[in-house]
Amino acid sequence: MSTNLFTIGLGGVIGDGTRLPLIAESEIMLLEKSLRKAESHLRIHSERGTMGYGWMKLPYADIEPLRLVARKLEDYDSIVQVGIGGSALGNLMLNNAFLHPFHNELTRKERKSPRFYMADNPDPLSLSGIWDCVDPERTAFVVVSKSGSTAETIAIFLWFFEAMRQRLGEEKALSHFVFITDPKKGILRDLASRGAMATLPVPENVGGRFSVFSEVGLLSASAMGLPVKDLLEGAKLLDERLIRADGIWDNPAWILAALHVLHFRKGRPMAVMMPYGDGLERFAEWHAQLWGESLGKEGKGSTPVRALGAIDQHSQVQLYVAGPDDKLFTLIDIAEKGPDLKIPSTAQKELAASRYLEGHSFSELLSVEARSTAAALMKAQKPVIWLEIPNLDGIRLGALVFLYEVVTALTGILLEVDPFDQPGVEQGKRYTYGLMGREGYGADAKEASEAFGKTLSKTLSV
Amino acid sequence: MSTNLFTIGLGGVIGDGTRLPLIAESEIMLLEKSLRKAESHLRIHSERGTMGYGWMKLPYADIEPLRLVARKLEDYDSIVQVGIGGSALGNLMLNNAFLHPFHNELTRKERKSPRFYMADNPDPLSLSGIWDCVDPERTAFVVVSKSGSTAETIAIFLWFFEAMRQRLGEEKALSHFVFITDPKKGILRDLASRGAMATLPVPENVGGRFSVFSEVGLLSASAMGLPVKDLLEGAKLLDERLIRADGIWDNPAWILAALHVLHFRKGRPMAVMMPYGDGLERFAEWHAQLWGESLGKEGKGSTPVRALGAIDQHSQVQLYVAGPDDKLFTLIDIAEKGPDLKIPSTAQKELAASRYLEGHSFSELLSVEARSTAAALMKAQKPVIWLEIPNLDGIRLGALVFLYEVVTALTGILLEVDPFDQPGVEQGKRYTYGLMGREGYGADAKEASEAFGKTLSKTLSV
Repeated sequence: MSTNLFTIGLGGVIGDGTRLPLIAESEIMLLEKSLRKAESHLRIHSERGTMGYGWMKLPYADIEPLRLVARKLEDYDSIVQVGIGGSALGNLMLNNAFLHPFHNELTRKERKSPRFYMADNPDPLSLSGIWDCVDPERTAFVVVSKSGSTAETIAIFLWFFEAMRQRLGEEKALSHFVFITDPKKGILRDLASRGAMATLPVPENVGGRFSVFSEVGLLSASAMGLPVKDLLEGAKLLDERLIRADGIWDNPAWILAALHVLHFRKGRPMAVMMPYGDGLERFAEWHAQLWGESLGKEGKGSTPVRALGAIDQHSQVQLYVAGPDDKLFTLIDIAEKGPDLKIPSTAQKELAASRYLEGHSFSELLSVEARSTAAALMKAQKPVIWLEIPNLDGIRLGALVFLYEVVTALTGILLEVDPFDQPGVEQGKRYTYGLMGREGYGADAKEASEAFGKTLSKTLSV
Repeated sequence: MSTNLFTIGLGGVIGDGTRLPLIAESEIMLLEKSLRKAESHLRIHSERGTMGYGWMKLPYADIEPLRLVARKLEDYDSIVQVGIGGSALGNLMLNNAFLHPFHNELTRKERKSPRFYMADNPDPLSLSGIWDCVDPERTAFVVVSKSGSTAETIAIFLWFFEAMRQRLGEEKALSHFVFITDPKKGILRDLASRGAMATLPVPENVGGRFSVFSEVGLLSASAMGLPVKDLLEGAKLLDERLIRADGIWDNPAWILAALHVLHFRKGRPMAVMMPYGDGLERFAEWHAQLWGESLGKEGKGSTPVRALGAIDQHSQVQLYVAGPDDKLFTLIDIAEKGPDLKIPSTAQKELAASRYLEGHSFSELLSVEARSTAAALMKAQKPVIWLEIPNLDGIRLGALVFLYEVVTALTGILLEVDPFDQPGVEQGKRYTYGLMGREGYGADAKEASEAFGKTLSKTLSV
């Protein structure tokens, strides 16, 4: 009940009387009825596990089955996950938040868990690069594809499987593979039944971008020794907090969804997510998929912009402060970014001009920079949501992830799009099938060649 | 003369008569006079090395002095570069393009050059993480700050210097440091004169985001064994190509600048840079700083959106295809992404559905995906610039980097902003000085506290 998960500062978006209010309270109040309806829709389908709302129950699921498989993985030297998009971004987010920043470079004793490689992009340099680094005898593969038909994932799987087969023989090779796929059908499941290490389901009614708290995200997390129970506990705490919330001003998901919808309607097509702290760099990547793919349809959708403080102060903040007023900013600060490193004092007289830094901690420096950026944006009359978490632990990250999943779903409902489909990527997939010569996709190949050919109807040779 | 650097497909932006032309040729022609004037401005100041145009002469500079220093660095086990923004992004781009994707994990014999760590963000977890991985006796530091007053860089420098001093004593510690800073003044130069390994200049009239072909970008590149001469050769070839160009339809920099300006004016506030291939992931990051910080001022500026194919097909392409028509897309394909890995054939009957992939190379798969995405965007009537390079070598990357530097400068001139200043970040810097207690910045501290305080004038505790 009393866990302080985080604090959200809304004064940079909702007028306080001392400057032109960017959004009036009355505008937000007008959305309360729609939000109440949306939330009830969401809760009903969550209970039933229908309409894509399966993810809402994930924090309450039994994770013992996946932990059993994770225990087998723990003993390997390296884990290679094969998956793309929602089958990769959640894992990368969790590793980024909790592993040593150079985990793979540490000794086994220092890192305590396997090395981890994500084989998401079918780039030959990256695939051969991973193969250079692993010992086939001591490497396990986790292949994630709900349908089993994702071209990139299947191609990469085929390559690693063949490489393993040549080294270990087919039977032994297969025993190094775990498949996470549709519980009933799909080519991976058929293959898996012939002697894989294990097969785990992608739960029903859970889309890829909402799957981080399922087997998709938690198998590797568990094998890597990340705080899986805390993540789910944090998600549950947030869920309970939402259920307990008393109207729009007490409900963080409602108010964030409302603000994003209102800013989008007021002509700000971009939502900038800018955490301060390297451990949340991949959170912004994960959020970009969640946000972009859930909302971008039917000519609607706000564009997620990924940023990282303080680095992007030296890259994007010039534009953010002095450029067009076309973005809603969310800045995330982590109060305690431990370890507690201090900026040392120095005897060098040459460095006297930098003496103001001495004795401050790096954690403090980053927080001051986050506040300075927020202040500069405020002075420039740009809308800023300030989100502060006490520290980056499993509880807080679990809560943050679940919060943004709910915010995204509610925003989709308010924008009147289905947050759980992705019809816009189907055409590109069919074009790829066609151009790769897959049977039955001849018409798509023709259409793709024609459409692509037009880009070359006028060329410049350099 | 005859080197094919790359091919630019413009048919996806300029109408070919078979679909609504997004930009009419006549609109482009109207800009030719302005472009001619802008180019002449640029060439005059490049000759004189004034007004921030020093970067245009960098490909012609003598790099022997930096190579001498690089040779000293080569013998260390690890190089840690301390710098942020323009003092980091260029180095990361070059390493990303040419080093093994897991360079630091290879043995010395395999990698042939030192391990490399970028200490850009003042995050205590990352700093202590780097320190965990390096052997102080065998580690060199490259500290890059033109002014010597960048808070993040100085703070990180002080921390590493103190850590080194404690291990090796002050004199020996200093001999492990190279400083790249203002040739005449600055606190780093003063310190460096007391026994650093070397000091190199940031050339005059070269801003951070345009500095990759100066000592800032090339010292580490040279020490890491990257194709420095080819990079400069490619930049020169591109420069000569621009000088030789016969009007707007033959000048890649002019046409790209014109297209970006016209699309921006037509209400597309975002420029998506989406290379296909992991080796160009950091090129998009580097470009984002170049583009955002050069153009984002006086209420103007198009927002750079960083993407990566094929990964973002499973994250952002839904939005790109089906969302609002508010973006200009540049897709970059690399024809030969060697090594030539093939998708193997398989005897498993379960995988019959994937048989269409067999025998194709991964390089081909990625190119097909790039074409499919371009085709899907074209079908959705979104503007696409197609840029194809034969392979990612030093010549091509050098040419690509130089091309986009010129495109950015010309776009800035056409938008009537100074592409070389960054006044919008000064306020945030002053706020940081103030909040960190630097003498003389009391008024800024007060202003920052007030402005930031407003974000907390309405809070929600979660």
